Amino acid sequence: MIETQYILTLSCPNRPGIVAAVSGLLFENGCNILDAQQFDATDTGIFFMRVVVDRIADEATEATLRKRLAKVAAEFSFNWSFRARTERQRVMILVSKFDHCLVDLLYRWRTGELPMDIAAIVSNHPLETFAHIEFFGAPFHYLPVSKATKPAQEAAVLRLIDETRTDVVVLARYMQVLSADLCTQLAGRCINIHHSILPGFKGASPYSQAFDRGVKLIGATAHFVTPDLDEGPIVEQDVERISHRDRPEDLVRKGRDIERRVLARALRHYLAGRVFLDGMKTVVFSE
Amino acid sequence: MIETQYILTLSCPNRPGIVAAVSGLLFENGCNILDAQQFDATDTGIFFMRVVVDRIADEATEATLRKRLAKVAAEFSFNWSFRARTERQRVMILVSKFDHCLVDLLYRWRTGELPMDIAAIVSNHPLETFAHIEFFGAPFHYLPVSKATKPAQEAAVLRLIDETRTDVVVLARYMQVLSADLCTQLAGRCINIHHSILPGFKGASPYSQAFDRGVKLIGATAHFVTPDLDEGPIVEQDVERISHRDRPEDLVRKGRDIERRVLARALRHYLAGRVFLDGMKTVVFSE
Amino acid sequence: MIETQYILTLSCPNRPGIVAAVSGLLFENGCNILDAQQFDATDTGIFFMRVVVDRIADEATEATLRKRLAKVAAEFSFNWSFRARTERQRVMILVSKFDHCLVDLLYRWRTGELPMDIAAIVSNHPLETFAHIEFFGAPFHYLPVSKATKPAQEAAVLRLIDETRTDVVVLARYMQVLSADLCTQLAGRCINIHHSILPGFKGASPYSQAFDRGVKLIGATAHFVTPDLDEGPIVEQDVERISHRDRPEDLVRKGRDIERRVLARALRHYLAGRVFLDGMKTVVFSE
Amino acid sequence: MIETQYILTLSCPNRPGIVAAVSGLLFENGCNILDAQQFDATDTGIFFMRVVVDRIADEATEATLRKRLAKVAAEFSFNWSFRARTERQRVMILVSKFDHCLVDLLYRWRTGELPMDIAAIVSNHPLETFAHIEFFGAPFHYLPVSKATKPAQEAAVLRLIDETRTDVVVLARYMQVLSADLCTQLAGRCINIHHSILPGFKGASPYSQAFDRGVKLIGATAHFVTPDLDEGPIVEQDVERISHRDRPEDLVRKGRDIERRVLARALRHYLAGRVFLDGMKTVVFSE
Repeated sequence: MIETQYILTLSCPNRPGIVAAVSGLLFENGCNILDAQQFDATDTGIFFMRVVVDRIADEATEATLRKRLAKVAAEFSFNWSFRARTERQRVMILVSKFDHCLVDLLYRWRTGELPMDIAAIVSNHPLETFAHIEFFGAPFHYLPVSKATKPAQEAAVLRLIDETRTDVVVLARYMQVLSADLCTQLAGRCINIHHSILPGFKGASPYSQAFDRGVKLIGATAHFVTPDLDEGPIVEQDVERISHRDRPEDLVRKGRDIERRVLARALRHYLAGRVFLDGMKTVVFSE
Repeated sequence: MIETQYILTLSCPNRPGIVAAVSGLLFENGCNILDAQQFDATDTGIFFMRVVVDRIADEATEATLRKRLAKVAAEFSFNWSFRARTERQRVMILVSKFDHCLVDLLYRWRTGELPMDIAAIVSNHPLETFAHIEFFGAPFHYLPVSKATKPAQEAAVLRLIDETRTDVVVLARYMQVLSADLCTQLAGRCINIHHSILPGFKGASPYSQAFDRGVKLIGATAHFVTPDLDEGPIVEQDVERISHRDRPEDLVRKGRDIERRVLARALRHYLAGRVFLDGMKTVVFSE
Repeated sequence: MIETQYILTLSCPNRPGIVAAVSGLLFENGCNILDAQQFDATDTGIFFMRVVVDRIADEATEATLRKRLAKVAAEFSFNWSFRARTERQRVMILVSKFDHCLVDLLYRWRTGELPMDIAAIVSNHPLETFAHIEFFGAPFHYLPVSKATKPAQEAAVLRLIDETRTDVVVLARYMQVLSADLCTQLAGRCINIHHSILPGFKGASPYSQAFDRGVKLIGATAHFVTPDLDEGPIVEQDVERISHRDRPEDLVRKGRDIERRVLARALRHYLAGRVFLDGMKTVVFSE
Repeated sequence: MIETQYILTLSCPNRPGIVAAVSGLLFENGCNILDAQQFDATDTGIFFMRVVVDRIADEATEATLRKRLAKVAAEFSFNWSFRARTERQRVMILVSKFDHCLVDLLYRWRTGELPMDIAAIVSNHPLETFAHIEFFGAPFHYLPVSKATKPAQEAAVLRLIDETRTDVVVLARYMQVLSADLCTQLAGRCINIHHSILPGFKGASPYSQAFDRGVKLIGATAHFVTPDLDEGPIVEQDVERISHRDRPEDLVRKGRDIERRVLARALRHYLAGRVFLDGMKTVVFSE
């Protein structure tokens, strides 16, 4: 039964014996390893691992196993998580006027392709902007922002994150630059979609920049947000071919398709515990 | 030092404890796991694993470890291999008139991108056909074939495989259909490149078939050879976009690029011990 | 002003002088050629052309030009069309239970990416199946079908096509095989999305077939419907990479993204007058 | 017969009547238009056209037609060229130590995929560096360069371009930055391959930069050389997916495949008269 499947993720300073210790422990506790991926980042010296196990029959078994894992974790200084595969993370979506990513995330949520709970949809534009969109009961919050009210608005966002027990924040074409302070507070749990192949065309109007430069490929990048604008760790990227015939509005149109699939993939990987921070980079275990 | 790195590959009927047993054994023998990938094929019930380790300091350590691995292998019924990462496999290349894959393999061999020894280059066309190609000392064998001489020629090929201690045979646009008997004898160690997106356009003249059908994508498929023509387990595939402007000769030209990169990737994965047979499919652990 | 732009499309037996005649006529009537593409299909001997012009100031000019074009058309035996760029074609969407293509088409319609009028949404499933989808006023028709009622249902579909002045029918994952008769009646104006890289995996359950065959790429094909199932002229195809880790349900999920973008591209090209039938193939002028 | 086919390319300030004038002239002189593409660059106001014609039976016809074209060209201020399709352009290849692009170009030249004459192969490394490469009679020139000798070396390159009647210069991983003066002299006829998705990772060691940034895609860009390093008009780009597992040397290896196909495509388009300069961009008519 699917309820007995758990995902273990961990990262720690690399040293011999981690795999042996973890797999030994799991075996001794009657778990079966369904999938395991690991990576040894030689530059930072960090070791990353994701294991899917099953045969965790009941809560008592889980509690015991968790206690024993905690012991190994302490020994090896794990940064770790152990949760049922069916446990849904809570996602907050921030959006401005362009709604293609929002609509796409909602669709994938409804069909179960993105197994999550939507903690909140937050916009700096009022509900009317999204009048044509079915939210399926996801709570909407209008938090307008101006230069003057930005600190207060960001405080409200943070409060909402807290109140809604949000695990991860998704900037689904949210056209406001977050303050350095908010970025820091959301480190490692806030994913943005930028509409260029970073590090090309950072900042404002990347499609317009791309048109002016005459590139033959456009793309999108999903990355963690950091205080350095468009410099955060990259989770996923993709591209499409364009030609001299494409006007700026064609780039915008073609880009929408890239943006929504790149953001959806990044979020899906994140929800499945496949994404790890490795300094200014990411480790993303493949599906 | 690189000489101390080894690759362990194994497949066996799945049952709990394999990972624990292997990683425990490696740890107890002072090995460090650099990379590990595994897959549990739920359809066939087979478990696949590839582990890269280092810190095997000398021959004595290696011999001890190998002995202990053999014991675990017997217990779990492993189909396994354990070899130094620097150990080169011996490759025989069969080719007919089209030389683009041959030239590409030779180039990647010379640059070290394909770490292998070339046991032999075999063709049903004479050496003059390849007059313009630098073989860098790889031995060439002219083994002409006709309907009448096919059994004898295939026997000569097999003898040569034996004599040259060939590990893997690559059909680099070898335009002869191998007999069922030869296919069986080379099961799991003979890779062919077919110039279509299998299972589309099996058999002769796939580009001509593709042109007639008016497809918008052409591709190539590297697969293991089996007695069923173009039905063997697929290792790698790739495609390119074409349009109504492309004539059959354009498909041939564009296809050459796809063929050579698909075949090179498949062979590279094979040489690195990343490719496993899983019934009529393959498991290919990503780079 | 955009209202003065017109699209001229034509096909005819190739012979010298067509381009000269058409471009001369357009010039003499004060039109400016904004874009022109042409193709000479040497196999079938047919010539194809698409021209976008502007500077058609008023209805009188248009009427005069149309009359003169008709004369040239008669001389060269054109199969032709001449319409304002803003003139919207009327699209009927047929759908069964899987709604991802329908939802995607509706989104692209709402945003103007697909400039069309929706003549009708027709399903063999009742309205409740689509309860969560906002139709934005597009009329929905429930036309259930069984083996016994198929002729009657198809007659109803045809009648609806007539009544709603539908220009093009889109089978957006409509899981019923159309009768040969209906296919013939809709020749050249009915586009289906098939979830495989045709000609691979024709017929039922292509993802299941793909899983069983162990392919490394899956894809989708938009094609005109003909009495030969999945053999109609191909308009557009695309693929994604999969691996041994992907289960049939992963293929279905990844496939949804391919299907919806392939179908949307095919329809967009069709609406823009870029798609021509060339025997059992298509000519698709690039954007 | 193929000898009677000609390629006409032209660009000029856009104004009505160009297509009518050209196609009318061609028709009146007995030519048949096999292929025609055009583009109206609304930003720069320049019109671009490429026409392939046949039925030019003899030299007299050609001379007459050329004279008449010159008249139209003067009227519309064409920047134009009219040449037999079989007429080969003369290409000079500059290369440093990395030989993958050179080897690839030579292979495509030998097979006829790149219809050109090789005017010279020039390197700042001696012939021994390329000992293993078959030049098929292409003349090799060793022109070493140091900071002090750069002006003299570049003068020698220019002289060689002149002497060998070179039409286009290809920098096939030539690791020297050309002086602004040489760039200016070679404006529009010198194509470089840069191993990044420009404008990302300009300058030195783009793969190393890409590794440090943790991107998920790497690529290559073929562009015309201008005094602004890596800022010249882009002709062609392509990418491949990488992952956290890829080390800098893997990026170099995977990049080689991208570089060689991007450069080959760009050169092939150039040789076919499909590439036009449009300010700081290019117009590339598709095959």
